[in-house]
Amino acid sequence: MARTEIASLGEFGLIKRLTEKFPIVNNTTLKAVGDDAAVLDYKDKQCLVTTDLLLEGIHFDLIYMPLKHLGYKSAIVNFSDIYAMNGFPKQITVSLGVSKRFSVEDLEDFYAGLRLACEEHGVDLVGGDTSASVTGLTISITCLGEGEAKNIVYRNTAKENDLICVSGNLGAAYMGLQLLEREKSVFANESNAQPDFSGKEYILQRQLRPEARKDIVKQLQDKAILPTAMIDISDGLSSELMHICTLSKCGCRIYEDKIPIDFQTASMAEEFNMNLVTAALNGGEDYELLFTIPLALHDKLIDIDDVTVIGHICKESMGLCLVTRDEQEFPLKAQGWNSLSTES
Amino acid sequence: MARTEIASLGEFGLIKRLTEKFPIVNNTTLKAVGDDAAVLDYKDKQCLVTTDLLLEGIHFDLIYMPLKHLGYKSAIVNFSDIYAMNGFPKQITVSLGVSKRFSVEDLEDFYAGLRLACEEHGVDLVGGDTSASVTGLTISITCLGEGEAKNIVYRNTAKENDLICVSGNLGAAYMGLQLLEREKSVFANESNAQPDFSGKEYILQRQLRPEARKDIVKQLQDKAILPTAMIDISDGLSSELMHICTLSKCGCRIYEDKIPIDFQTASMAEEFNMNLVTAALNGGEDYELLFTIPLALHDKLIDIDDVTVIGHICKESMGLCLVTRDEQEFPLKAQGWNSLSTES
Repeated sequence: MARTEIASLGEFGLIKRLTEKFPIVNNTTLKAVGDDAAVLDYKDKQCLVTTDLLLEGIHFDLIYMPLKHLGYKSAIVNFSDIYAMNGFPKQITVSLGVSKRFSVEDLEDFYAGLRLACEEHGVDLVGGDTSASVTGLTISITCLGEGEAKNIVYRNTAKENDLICVSGNLGAAYMGLQLLEREKSVFANESNAQPDFSGKEYILQRQLRPEARKDIVKQLQDKAILPTAMIDISDGLSSELMHICTLSKCGCRIYEDKIPIDFQTASMAEEFNMNLVTAALNGGEDYELLFTIPLALHDKLIDIDDVTVIGHICKESMGLCLVTRDEQEFPLKAQGWNSLSTES
Repeated sequence: MARTEIASLGEFGLIKRLTEKFPIVNNTTLKAVGDDAAVLDYKDKQCLVTTDLLLEGIHFDLIYMPLKHLGYKSAIVNFSDIYAMNGFPKQITVSLGVSKRFSVEDLEDFYAGLRLACEEHGVDLVGGDTSASVTGLTISITCLGEGEAKNIVYRNTAKENDLICVSGNLGAAYMGLQLLEREKSVFANESNAQPDFSGKEYILQRQLRPEARKDIVKQLQDKAILPTAMIDISDGLSSELMHICTLSKCGCRIYEDKIPIDFQTASMAEEFNMNLVTAALNGGEDYELLFTIPLALHDKLIDIDDVTVIGHICKESMGLCLVTRDEQEFPLKAQGWNSLSTES
């Protein structure tokens, strides 16, 4: 396979090669790549801004993460933050630090994944910065999105008696990661070993190629359901629930038997002899939406695909608890991914 | 001196500690740090977006760059891009990847520099991402700014006969870097050696604590001078002139004897036996503004402090040349910093 050295193109040649295939699809994007700054015009809409830093060896492992998937996922995790405000992503800037190990073709793979995510979500690439790095791959993405003032949903506005809802299912990406890590260590010991992933495609996809829930935000707006509070689940359900409850000065009850879990997640947890509910509560990278709605809107929820009511908001003094199948209450703990305190 | 381990605070504790001292000064900032995304409202103004990635070992050397200065400079280089659009910076997001080598106090130093830059330029910190890193320090900053549609200045709109203007003076930051690199190697050989920087404070300051030219943009707007094209000088005058001329499909003549150079820059170049004009044309990190104005506005320029006319725009077929003191013409070459092709 061809390997073009990045140095042979130079910074501007590289940027041109990587970005020229990106169309501009939003009328809010007046000027994209190619000047000191991009120029956007949101007119009467409000502008949402979020940013994520992804570092090799911390957030991803290129042993099992193909660069195209990494490009896709890097964009998706940012889009997810915009959807969590009940807005729509419109522009991204992408900065890369790349060591000599990477060829132009490698970066083209990354950008192909990025482009796919942008196409699916109607997002324009409007800028970035590309630099050499002494070690590994550094990815920094900032995403801008739009929302109408009356529709933007914050974390600190959940109310007592609101229903707690979650999209999709939880813990799958975490179990996918466990599987990949196991196969990696098997592979390290026996180089002839071929991983067998059959029947585990879904949890792998959730880890390697997660989706951002544009469909949920669109359905909520179509059905005129305005959540009272919303957040995306990147650090685990427990951790995100604590954010909403702490900021909204309230407590919550969620029910073990309501937590949506896919069959492959459950079967993988059994194979690993792991507690399934713990994985669903604390496994990271679900990128599902967690939101609260007034009790009065309960009937309207029937029209929304792929959303589950898992509990309700209560008084702050009642604390945050998981109610088990045998009706015992256990306080929720945030054991989510904390890359800073677990750094090695 | 106290050393608090980052892990002892955790991600959210760290973010709180670093960001709680930042006031919000812009009425366009509706929601800053603390949700999935920041919320901005630019109303009838247009939104400018720029981003820079700064990597340890490539863009900065902590041997001679204090973290407070690095925080200041990291913000300034982004503000400079917004000024180069004839706009004003209003918000930044700051993402950091930090290895265990750094303490909370180190990061507080970095944020103190960042805060100083934000205060001086009226900019709000609205978000970011803080992560562990396996190696060194990674800084990614995105800056948003505002401009009125009729005032935003691009790179591709210079016209034949326009005057070419530059703010401040050139080559000083580059000579400051040469001095620091020399003292670093002296210090590596003799650990008792103390660098003597007296009489060289200005070039050191230009390297370690550069300024972004808000004052020039303000003066131009106050005097109703709208540049036809503008760019900031980060990769050297030659390289930036080539951007403007290539994108505007024109040529230029600049005059050696007009290029503004500070005395300390000249004396340092002599000490190093380096060609002074080459340093001024190709030395990076000036963060001065390079802009073009219609010839008819020449008389108005007298009212603008610290701007020099260095040449004029001509037909594309005439190429880009430097005219020397003895009236010879030499084609300009972009030898600017190209971190990708010189990576080691």
